[in-house]
Amino acid sequence: MGEKRKLGRGVCIVGAGMSRFDMYKDKDSKQLFAEAFKECIDSVDKGIDPKEIQAMWLGNFTNDFFIHQGHWGPIISDLLGLPPKPATRTEGACASSTLAVKDAAYAIASGMYDIVLAGGVEEMSKISTEAVSEGLALAGSPYEVYEGFTFPAVFGAIATAYFAKYGATWEDLNYVTVKSHENAKLNPKAQFNMTIKDIMNLRIEKYKKKGQPVPEWKDEYEALRDPRFNPVVAWPMRLFDCCPISDGAACVLLVAEEIAHMFTDHPIYIIGMGQGSGRALHDCPSLTSLEANKHAAKEAYEMAGLTPKDIQFAEVHDCFSIAELIHIEDLGFCKEGTAYRFVREGGTRLNGPMPINTSGGLKCKGHPVGATGAAQMVEVWHQLRGEAGPRQIPNGDLHIGASQNLGGTGGTCTFMIFSNEK
Amino acid sequence: MGEKRKLGRGVCIVGAGMSRFDMYKDKDSKQLFAEAFKECIDSVDKGIDPKEIQAMWLGNFTNDFFIHQGHWGPIISDLLGLPPKPATRTEGACASSTLAVKDAAYAIASGMYDIVLAGGVEEMSKISTEAVSEGLALAGSPYEVYEGFTFPAVFGAIATAYFAKYGATWEDLNYVTVKSHENAKLNPKAQFNMTIKDIMNLRIEKYKKKGQPVPEWKDEYEALRDPRFNPVVAWPMRLFDCCPISDGAACVLLVAEEIAHMFTDHPIYIIGMGQGSGRALHDCPSLTSLEANKHAAKEAYEMAGLTPKDIQFAEVHDCFSIAELIHIEDLGFCKEGTAYRFVREGGTRLNGPMPINTSGGLKCKGHPVGATGAAQMVEVWHQLRGEAGPRQIPNGDLHIGASQNLGGTGGTCTFMIFSNEK
Repeated sequence: MGEKRKLGRGVCIVGAGMSRFDMYKDKDSKQLFAEAFKECIDSVDKGIDPKEIQAMWLGNFTNDFFIHQGHWGPIISDLLGLPPKPATRTEGACASSTLAVKDAAYAIASGMYDIVLAGGVEEMSKISTEAVSEGLALAGSPYEVYEGFTFPAVFGAIATAYFAKYGATWEDLNYVTVKSHENAKLNPKAQFNMTIKDIMNLRIEKYKKKGQPVPEWKDEYEALRDPRFNPVVAWPMRLFDCCPISDGAACVLLVAEEIAHMFTDHPIYIIGMGQGSGRALHDCPSLTSLEANKHAAKEAYEMAGLTPKDIQFAEVHDCFSIAELIHIEDLGFCKEGTAYRFVREGGTRLNGPMPINTSGGLKCKGHPVGATGAAQMVEVWHQLRGEAGPRQIPNGDLHIGASQNLGGTGGTCTFMIFSNEK
Repeated sequence: MGEKRKLGRGVCIVGAGMSRFDMYKDKDSKQLFAEAFKECIDSVDKGIDPKEIQAMWLGNFTNDFFIHQGHWGPIISDLLGLPPKPATRTEGACASSTLAVKDAAYAIASGMYDIVLAGGVEEMSKISTEAVSEGLALAGSPYEVYEGFTFPAVFGAIATAYFAKYGATWEDLNYVTVKSHENAKLNPKAQFNMTIKDIMNLRIEKYKKKGQPVPEWKDEYEALRDPRFNPVVAWPMRLFDCCPISDGAACVLLVAEEIAHMFTDHPIYIIGMGQGSGRALHDCPSLTSLEANKHAAKEAYEMAGLTPKDIQFAEVHDCFSIAELIHIEDLGFCKEGTAYRFVREGGTRLNGPMPINTSGGLKCKGHPVGATGAAQMVEVWHQLRGEAGPRQIPNGDLHIGASQNLGGTGGTCTFMIFSNEK
């Protein structure tokens, strides 16, 4: 009892799509989800009539707050012409759409449905930055946010603890940032699909145009050290350590394994699923590791019958650069206290031994919070099918990828493992 | 394909609890959920160590809006000492906690977990009535609420359509109200655990005390016709047609059928689960029947292998008195257009052939929206175990009960069927 981790039936992804993530003046949640849905349906190799979809799960953090509208399950279901079929919203802050995929997968594995759409959406950019911060703070522990401990501050504290414990410095984080921008440059769906050098050049143009002194940065790392280029947000988190405010949507089409062949000869199998919940920070044993992460990893590895060594690449929840280090340690890709060196040595780059956030991650691809978990899976889908274009991982034997999603300050963590073979 | 409705393993309820529903000045969501949880754990016949719980699903509509705090899965999980185990929030407006129970049941049926807590909570009374109305309107279709078509107005329109189509009158609705209050008088957890006569007497006392003219109502029905006692809210919905604003929590403990015997010799089996989503009202074929209701009923009856005739009693979502009539027709308990006569003849009373809302329903038990679906199941649990005390249905052969939950104006509808035998 309590040790069963195998699902009653297998679940596969047979389609995946996402909108471009960006700050949109002219597109709302419905338009963005429609774009993601169309791409998802079009991606099904052998085609599907959307009428075959039997149910939908949708992640959304708080469009309630951001655009004053709740109950998004039936709103999106209605948009797609799915009623009267069921539509359920899940919420786990920034991990909301991984929860949607998980609950949808359980429903298929239970035998209830065979074909289910799961995704997420968030619309954040139409209100002021201050209001977005207030909205995001709804995801934090009530013991933290009411003391002013908002997310940049929390991750600043986590970074400070990490530096003190392991001897890393803030400059180590810049290797995360530079790598994320390099990957995002290759991803047309990314909000910032440009390298740090591209941004440096834009900035120099701007200074010239305004007749201001033009800095002579010798490389990206020097620019990132310049407070004029990269000001402090919440010490030691600087601007380029923080993900942006975004609007966007993403979804995947899930089917029971035994019918996957009807839709594609190249399904992606969900072979591991895990989730954990976290305590308020004052009650956590450590700031540099998240219990919920480790529980999620344990559940997923047990289900998959795998160890961290088997994972070949992953999308992880880099809401802040420091989070990427914490996650790759918690998931077992690096020993605790060593991730910063691994990253510095290029271990997580596209051509490294363990590519992380080939999409550009939250930092560069963008972070419409309720859509992020599903969008991570869209990237894994592309990589495992060898369809990631210029950012395809140059490993001829790519079989197992993963996605890790975080909500709040570790209140919700998820870990999903995927394979392109059974 | 698409016809599988049997779950891979059976799921049972082995514990159930709820807070009293009320408007609390001195209790918040955490205190109320703690009360529900304690009662639930204490109700497990052979006992359970809460540490055995492997995951939690929690329904909440929008504490985001009502009390400016989101991400309730881990907040409640932390309160109960469950981290690092998973905690997922579901939202389907006023049907949020039925979605929690459904997703938890899928997770068990899938083989992932054996012991899961599922429930819901909402805290609505600490803000103004106008603000609560604004919050509730987040659940409506964006095509409706921005035109001022709030919930009392929508259900007023539904009632008007029902009256015009079937020749019923508003006075027929009073038979729903009087019956609900009679049942609630017998339910100590009900926000209004008093009959209409009790309320009439309180009112008379008040008039006397203030030296105002004292009405001479010959019975409840005459009082309900008096606009001084029962003023119009949104014609033809009067005060006593509308459920109150409430705070509260409820939960059930779900386990895999094969281990239920470890916790009780009298589990309640979940034998049918169904859900539907609805279109915006302007696009619905009818105002007097909800497509989503019928889809939910179809799914649940198919899974249970039952027909409406097999259901012996039900809790249904009487957010407004007219809704009770619509639901019992949509679920097939009465032919369309006949429920008002069935109710008038006493068919839905405690000693009638089809008791409805023995708990007092939303109208009298209260409606903390995210808790309502789970609370309906708490009532079914008590009835099917013969433990409903003075409001126990006087039917010596009670085996099958149901609960029907609605979100928005039919955006989400659910139907659950339970049995005390396999």
